[in-house]
Parts: sequence; C-alpha cells; structure tokens
Amino acid sequence: MNVNVRGRTRHYRTVTFDPARNEVLLIEQRLLPHTFRIIATKNFRETAGAIHDMIVRGAGAIGATAAYGLVQGTLAFHGRDLRKFQRQVDTVYQALKAARPTAVDPINAMNGVRTAMRTGESVEEQQKLALAAAEEFANEDVAHCEAIGRHGARLIRHGMKILTHCNAGWLAFVDLGTATAPLYAAQAQGRRFHVFCDETRPRSQGATLTAWELAQQKISHQVIADNAAGHLMQRGEIDLVIVGSDRTLGRTGEVANKIGTYTKAVLAKRHGIPFYVAIPLSTIDWRLKSGFDIPIEERHESEVLGAWGVLTSPRSTVGSPPSVKRAYVRVANPTSGARNPGFDVTPPELIAGLITPAGIFRPKDLWNRRRELGLTD
Amino acid sequence: MNVNVRGRTRHYRTVTFDPARNEVLLIEQRLLPHTFRIIATKNFRETAGAIHDMIVRGAGAIGATAAYGLVQGTLAFHGRDLRKFQRQVDTVYQALKAARPTAVDPINAMNGVRTAMRTGESVEEQQKLALAAAEEFANEDVAHCEAIGRHGARLIRHGMKILTHCNAGWLAFVDLGTATAPLYAAQAQGRRFHVFCDETRPRSQGATLTAWELAQQKISHQVIADNAAGHLMQRGEIDLVIVGSDRTLGRTGEVANKIGTYTKAVLAKRHGIPFYVAIPLSTIDWRLKSGFDIPIEERHESEVLGAWGVLTSPRSTVGSPPSVKRAYVRVANPTSGARNPGFDVTPPELIAGLITPAGIFRPKDLWNRRRELGLTD
Repeated sequence: MNVNVRGRTRHYRTVTFDPARNEVLLIEQRLLPHTFRIIATKNFRETAGAIHDMIVRGAGAIGATAAYGLVQGTLAFHGRDLRKFQRQVDTVYQALKAARPTAVDPINAMNGVRTAMRTGESVEEQQKLALAAAEEFANEDVAHCEAIGRHGARLIRHGMKILTHCNAGWLAFVDLGTATAPLYAAQAQGRRFHVFCDETRPRSQGATLTAWELAQQKISHQVIADNAAGHLMQRGEIDLVIVGSDRTLGRTGEVANKIGTYTKAVLAKRHGIPFYVAIPLSTIDWRLKSGFDIPIEERHESEVLGAWGVLTSPRSTVGSPPSVKRAYVRVANPTSGARNPGFDVTPPELIAGLITPAGIFRPKDLWNRRRELGLTD
Repeated sequence: MNVNVRGRTRHYRTVTFDPARNEVLLIEQRLLPHTFRIIATKNFRETAGAIHDMIVRGAGAIGATAAYGLVQGTLAFHGRDLRKFQRQVDTVYQALKAARPTAVDPINAMNGVRTAMRTGESVEEQQKLALAAAEEFANEDVAHCEAIGRHGARLIRHGMKILTHCNAGWLAFVDLGTATAPLYAAQAQGRRFHVFCDETRPRSQGATLTAWELAQQKISHQVIADNAAGHLMQRGEIDLVIVGSDRTLGRTGEVANKIGTYTKAVLAKRHGIPFYVAIPLSTIDWRLKSGFDIPIEERHESEVLGAWGVLTSPRSTVGSPPSVKRAYVRVANPTSGARNPGFDVTPPELIAGLITPAGIFRPKDLWNRRRELGLTD
C-alpha cells in the first residue's frame, strides 16, 4: 500500500525479497506509527530474529517472511552437494520455525517452499524453485486479500460510517490486509466514507497501526476509546462493522479475535448494525468443535497497567512529535494488578457474514463450503 | 476512608475544615494514585483555585469544598458591620461559583449555607451558623453514601465477582462514595469478594482512582481493559455490576454516566447479570423528559490519542515506581484525530435497580417515589 515518506507517496509491501542482494526487506513495525523505516535482513538468522522480535507481525506477513527467510538461507549455500544442501535447508527451517513456535503460518509457508523444491534435481534448480515458491506464497497472500476486498467492498456505500477493531490491515499481511481490504477497494471505486478506529487497549493496535494505515491511504478516520462505540451506535453514527479474525471455527462459525471484538458484536446486534468478519483461509480451524475449547492467552499485566507511546505535550498540534523515543508510562495504581485476556470468542448469531476470498458466507454455512474454502481430507 | 501512609493506616475524609486555622484540607487528587498528599488552602481564593484546578473533583466533594470555602471567606471577615460582611460573603460566593461554573453541587451547597446564615443577627452569629451549615452539608453527604452502602450491601454475597466502571468512590464525595459504598459496607460485614475495575479510558479513573481506593481498603481487585468485561461475563466470571451516575432522569430512569457505562449494561443484560446504579440524590434531574436531550460533552482529543502516567519500566515489580513525575505519551498515529464523547446514556430496561439513600428502586419507579427522594414543588 501507499506510504508518505518525506512528502512523496510510494508503494510498499510489508515483506519483499531482493534476490540480487539476498536480503529480506521488512517494514520495522515496532517504530510505527511514529517512524517509518525499511530494514534489510542480511541472512536467515537475522530474518528469524526479525520474526522473534516482532519487527514483523501478523499471520500472512510472518508466513511470507519465513518463506523468504528459507529461500535466503537456501541461496546462501555455495556448492553442488545435495546432501549438504539439504542439511543447510533443515537448519534454516528449524531456526525460522523456532522464531515464533506457536504460529502456523510460517510452518505452512515453509512447507510449501520445501515441497516445491523437492522436484529440483540440482542445488541450483532447487534454489530457483524455492524462490519461485516463496514469491508464489506472497502473491497468493495478496490475491486472497484482493478477493476479500472485492467481495467486502460491496458492503460499503458512499457516506457510510464504519467501525473497525484492532489491526487486520496490510501490515499484518503482505499487502492490503483483510478487515481493511474492503475499505481500500471501496476507496479505489471512488466511494467516500468515514472509519472509526477502536483504540483497542491494551496494545492499542487500532490507534497506532490501523490509524496509521488509513492516514497513509488518505481515508477519513478518527480514533475512539473502546468505550465510545456503544454511544456512537446508539446515536446512529455507525452503519457497518468490519473486523478480522485470529481463528475461525469451520464447524461452528465462531470467531476468536482481539479482546473486545465480542463486545462490539453484541452492541452491533442490539442496534441492528451489520457485523462482518474478514477471514484469510489460513485462520480457519476445521477441527475444534466449540469456541470454549479455544485457549485464551493471558498476557502480561503491564499491558493493562500502563501504555507505550512517545513523550510529547498533550496539546501539541497534530503532526509528528519532536521526539520519537518510545516510553512506557504506568497509568494504574502502583499496588494493583490486572487480568489481561488477549482474545475473545464471538458466536455466529452475532455475525452477519464472513468475508472470505471465496465470497461472503453466513458463519453457519462455512462447513458446507469447506471444499471451496480449501479443506482437503 | 483508610489510607496507608508510610506503613500506617489512617482515616481521612476527602474534604475537611479546620476552624482553628481557618483552612480547608483536601486530598491532592491530581497526584493519585502515585502520591498521597493533603493540602491546606489558606483562604477562599486558594479554595476556589483547588476546585478550578481539579485538586478536588466529584459531585459531593466539590459541593463540600465550596461550602467550606464560603465559611472560610466568611470567618476571614473581622468587624461588626453586617452590610460590609454581606458584601464579603457575596464576593466569596461568586469566586467559588466561578471556579466550576457548570457544576450544580457547589451552588446548592453554598445556597444552603447562605440560607442558614440569614437567621443570625450579628456577624459572629452568622459566622457560627455558616460553619454549622457547612458541617451539616458534609455530614449529610456522608450519611447519604452510608445509606447507599447499607442498601447496596444486600446485593453482595460472599465470593462474588463484581465489575465497576470509572470512579464514583469516596474521592468523589466527602467519604465512602456511591458505587463503592456497598463494597465497603459488605466488607465491614465480613464478606469477601473480588472487584474488576474497568480501566475506563480515556481518563483511566478506574485504573487510577478506584484501584487506589480498593487497595487502601485491602479489597481484592484487578484492573481490566475496557475490552475485557464481555469476555469475562461470557466465561461466567462476573456476578454483579455496580456503577455510579452523573445524571439520572427522574421521569424516565435513564442514567448518564462515564462513557462505556452503556456498553457494560448491554453486556450485562445479554448475560443475565444484574446491573445496578448507585445514585446520590443531587444527580436526579426531575425536569428532562428524554435521555437524548442530555448534552454529551465532547472532550479534547488528546485524552484518546495518548495517556498520562509515570515513567517506569513495564517489567518493574508491583509497588511504587522510583520516579513519580507524571508524563503524557502520545500513543496514536501522530497524523490522526479522535472523537471523544465523555458520557453515554443507559436506558432503564438495562438497569436492575437504582441504589439511592432511600432504598433500591426500579428506574421506572423513580417518578412515583419523587417525594421520598426529595423533589419538592
């Protein structure tokens, strides 16, 4: 998507690969929204470090980064001995897998690259096949987001006010994003609308990442406290809700997503406002039979008890603060603790539709559409 | 209520008056929860400044402060000329009224003091009557909160998990508070329970003030993100909700309170969890006919776009941070703006009961009980 750098607008993907220099190029997401910087990892260990240290985050984005990291380690092999080459590939694979051990996307992406490589009969041939497979993985991620955008854009009419929660934007994928893709597609079709970005405490991804994305794309938007959406709905100021999904149960249509998603779905239902969830196919879980079986991660209490930002004056005019040094402030009473569940589960009766690359489906229909949606058994 | 100061527990009111030194004593609330300090105002102008600068805030607390401030200005008059004395009283009244021009509590409290004074026939007699009336106002504020606590404590059973939003605690009144009074009363009766304090973005009064109060009273509690209550309700971890009210419509039973209150009421209804509102009589508005007529204040966007706290390490162990210098961090994207409605309106069908000093009533019954609740016409 577009990024404004020193007054000029340029197009970037979240993750790209430079075969000539054998470098993976990543947006340094930990500096956003205050500083935009592209970093280049010089070898697969640096790439694994970038995944581990959250320089890159989000399902599709870390999948593509791992795929490119595997290619990078593969291309660094000089020689013709296929067995030694294979050992090198295994080492690289394990290092990248260990960078984020609970994530499925890096493993799926790297398995795809390894399967493609196997048909090659020489080191050089396998290296070429690996690169082609990683590029294909990244392009398919973009194509899926494009399809979500195409289907979802039909929901957006001129003048609408749309609520989003957290960030399922292009920074979490290779490009376009999922919950944001319909916004970008509708904008490209000439429609104008306004987006309310839920702050999304405790990590504030709505206020930081989604607001940054929409600002770069020049989409009209405002940040709101997570407490404010109910009031805005009550006063008729929200017409549509679109969120992303961390895990979608293929058997029930339940959606696990960032904490607070469920609350917005309950409010939307009460006010008759359509609540849609954009889902990449990789998040569909065809196995689990109940949302209550989804483990809800309890995160560190410091996230709730304070906030990260840059030191500035509260009355400074809109624009980059003079200092971009990030700082943590303790907000809460110093002798109090916190509970910090990271996700919640939204039941299917609150969801108007799931926006998938294959079309918009009612949650209950996912299972019947499982072949279209890629379940093979 | 109790405050732990350097390891010793002492009892404090939010506002008191020292007639011997002619000083109003106030808890410096802007330093909480990180520093506890009592300040003494030396004259009525300093007292007006304390109201204006939010050293003291909350309906009952600023009412009592204004009443004591009027006494303070009155006692500073030396002489016997009743006409000159009356001019001094007028000057003091106007200065204290101007300190928070939109608040009704200071005006009601000062009018009570002035009415009581008028029966005195000398300066000295009027000074004594003023002091007695101000003390009576403060004691009545405490008595009302005690009654709310007595009625509300019946709702709290041993082992319950209770959700609160924002701060309608003793810091907002002379003592005890409204939403917190049932907690303190139930604790005094030997029951043990756990309180979840909604952080209450954007100003975080739940994480700062309510959590501080409960910690001083040694009530088991945790801060949660405003996004987390829905999930906790869904998993059966909340049994009761008690909040305060900024304005309650006597004709309809609608409650205007801190932004996010409505959302919690909607969630509680869905989960069959009783949602109670503790209301001091001074917040009942017998005139307005619809909650939609309540003006909703839009506050400065900097509150949503950042956070106030003290600079510390996020991994520091629980306890006072080494530095207590407050700082503002900008959290949101620097080129984005915000909407910041300060309050929302909860309709009566979501409210199990209103806890008043005169008992617990269904919202729809307020109007029928208007005589008991102090409406005179």
